[in-house]
Amino acid sequence: MTSNRLEAFSDGVLAIIITIMVLELVSPDQVTLESLIPIVPTIVSYFFSFIYIGIYWNNHHHLFQVTQKINGKILWSNLHLLFWLSLIPFSTTWIGENYMEAVPVALYGFILLMSAIAFYILQRTIIKSHKENFVLRKAVGTDSKGKLSIALYTFGLLISFLNTWAAIGIYIIVAIIWFIPDSRIEKNLDKTKKGVPPAK
Amino acid sequence: MTSNRLEAFSDGVLAIIITIMVLELVSPDQVTLESLIPIVPTIVSYFFSFIYIGIYWNNHHHLFQVTQKINGKILWSNLHLLFWLSLIPFSTTWIGENYMEAVPVALYGFILLMSAIAFYILQRTIIKSHKENFVLRKAVGTDSKGKLSIALYTFGLLISFLNTWAAIGIYIIVAIIWFIPDSRIEKNLDKTKKGVPPAK
Amino acid sequence: MTSNRLEAFSDGVLAIIITIMVLELVSPDQVTLESLIPIVPTIVSYFFSFIYIGIYWNNHHHLFQVTQKINGKILWSNLHLLFWLSLIPFSTTWIGENYMEAVPVALYGFILLMSAIAFYILQRTIIKSHKENFVLRKAVGTDSKGKLSIALYTFGLLISFLNTWAAIGIYIIVAIIWFIPDSRIEKNLDKTKKGVPPAK
Amino acid sequence: MTSNRLEAFSDGVLAIIITIMVLELVSPDQVTLESLIPIVPTIVSYFFSFIYIGIYWNNHHHLFQVTQKINGKILWSNLHLLFWLSLIPFSTTWIGENYMEAVPVALYGFILLMSAIAFYILQRTIIKSHKENFVLRKAVGTDSKGKLSIALYTFGLLISFLNTWAAIGIYIIVAIIWFIPDSRIEKNLDKTKKGVPPAK
Repeated sequence: MTSNRLEAFSDGVLAIIITIMVLELVSPDQVTLESLIPIVPTIVSYFFSFIYIGIYWNNHHHLFQVTQKINGKILWSNLHLLFWLSLIPFSTTWIGENYMEAVPVALYGFILLMSAIAFYILQRTIIKSHKENFVLRKAVGTDSKGKLSIALYTFGLLISFLNTWAAIGIYIIVAIIWFIPDSRIEKNLDKTKKGVPPAK
Repeated sequence: MTSNRLEAFSDGVLAIIITIMVLELVSPDQVTLESLIPIVPTIVSYFFSFIYIGIYWNNHHHLFQVTQKINGKILWSNLHLLFWLSLIPFSTTWIGENYMEAVPVALYGFILLMSAIAFYILQRTIIKSHKENFVLRKAVGTDSKGKLSIALYTFGLLISFLNTWAAIGIYIIVAIIWFIPDSRIEKNLDKTKKGVPPAK
Repeated sequence: MTSNRLEAFSDGVLAIIITIMVLELVSPDQVTLESLIPIVPTIVSYFFSFIYIGIYWNNHHHLFQVTQKINGKILWSNLHLLFWLSLIPFSTTWIGENYMEAVPVALYGFILLMSAIAFYILQRTIIKSHKENFVLRKAVGTDSKGKLSIALYTFGLLISFLNTWAAIGIYIIVAIIWFIPDSRIEKNLDKTKKGVPPAK
Repeated sequence: MTSNRLEAFSDGVLAIIITIMVLELVSPDQVTLESLIPIVPTIVSYFFSFIYIGIYWNNHHHLFQVTQKINGKILWSNLHLLFWLSLIPFSTTWIGENYMEAVPVALYGFILLMSAIAFYILQRTIIKSHKENFVLRKAVGTDSKGKLSIALYTFGLLISFLNTWAAIGIYIIVAIIWFIPDSRIEKNLDKTKKGVPPAK
């Protein structure tokens, strides 16, 4: 089984997730510049969710570029990731309307946390299904970036009950950490192609 | 005619079906943890429908991996399957809001039943369109799994008028039966590739 | 320019059109079997629109299978077709709620008519962009099927102001005419491949 | 990294953007021809947005046809473009309902302007990531068409506060300028293939 159709299906789901959020942007009843102000938080939350989905698409792309075979476990780990990501639009609408309230901010963090854990599981599952000298194993290493994200999301989700702005700040820090695509995989992949043994 | 474009189109439809269900998750008016409780059944029903669509995508993937040619009959059998699957989001919303009522539970079972029958027809149509030594024919055999699903869905749909929880339990049993991807096809395909004659 | 990406984009649009119609199926407030009766016309109209889109996907598939090159004119003729097809969900909802009223039935016929004309234009544009011995030219011939559809839709749309059932009957006749995929192209394509000169 | 998956993902997002606008077309409560009149502006605005998205899909297609490699910067420039384009449905609904009001017309122009700037940035990013004799560099040249669009959108957006029809007229002029696919790239690409050095 090749990864082509799994990638195509995931691309479809991610494209829909990233786009349907905009359906929640309801055009204002009035036609003044002021009437746009109430939807600014919704647009801002849409903007951030767009970036989060973009980061996942990016990393998903990198992950399956090196994946050589697909089995049932990888397939379901992938669907598990897509499930949590598919809840982002719902949570985005809620946080957009209530960005100063603890529960919506905590729920947003919870869904980001579960997505991060799902991505971690997917990565582990792919590594386990491949041989020892698999390029991803070397590239990911201890995956400190993935573990740090999980820790930060947990921290942000808890702190949202004390201060929502602090929680949102922490979520944004994770986005910045991941904004740059995972160059570790790309570098190792390039080395392998050139016949140079991948870095340990 | 190759199966590439049929698979791409089906992937698109399945990706949309699996994702638009989330549009029915309306963010609560209040911002307490308690305000999330009323939407828990909707999320749970979404979760199960997600798994059902995932199983169909999985089996669809396996089916067309071995399909060598496409004709008009296969094409319409495939659209017939997609039609019934496309009704799952509607039924999911209804059962999510009324999981203790007989009619929504029965309707959910009915749509799952029709989807199972449509998949069975699609499989038969593909087998009939191929030659005698076609790998799928050997792999599927008497298709006891498919027939069992149809029997269980019929039973669940009828029993929902007596006890909705029993009906839901039966639907979940079918999901568990199918959760593991159809290893019969994969094994036979692998054998064929390796030059070993497929099992009878 | 190859037709791959044009086909992928069209597949995406058609997959969305065929699926979003189901979003209009609103789950009933009550939970009796009777409460499903008011949505039966909507489901029936959804069923027919599903078949119409299926036919167009089918014929679109056949058309681009033989298309060897894409230019700007073909691209815009294709988008023109997608535009009219994208109005089918809107019209389907309206006719589903008012299947005994002249204007919704006429509008449905009008959109089917414009789609048929757009498909005819697309076919002509593709033929004009290819050389004389192009397989599609021979296969399509005088395209009596296409011209008949346009005549029937015009007739149905006009008759809907007298009798909506007669108009709906005519629309269904066109669907039956097209239900079988365009075997003319397939046969000619097969012949060409086998070195046999295509039928005149 | 090849551009295949980036193109597939972008196709998915563009297909959704171009199609979901139709969800805003609410079927009228009444069934007279007159009842369709209030939704005519919405259909007209949908028609124009359809053309704008079509133009972007077209130019995007041309752009990535010549792009030989993808990196993180190109990926995020592409997502940046998709973000602005994804706001077109929201803006289309608003302008459709209020086409004689300054703010919705200005907002529509603003989103078109930001999309044009995003496309310009994407083009620059791709050129910078390739070598000196890259075909796109020669083809695009000083990109007077891109710069003119940005100037016209800015002008239209400002003038909308004086006269909405004048602003809409300017937006349509930009659409006409871009309606013809970017033949510069196509011509240069053809020349390069034929071994003729591309025009300076």
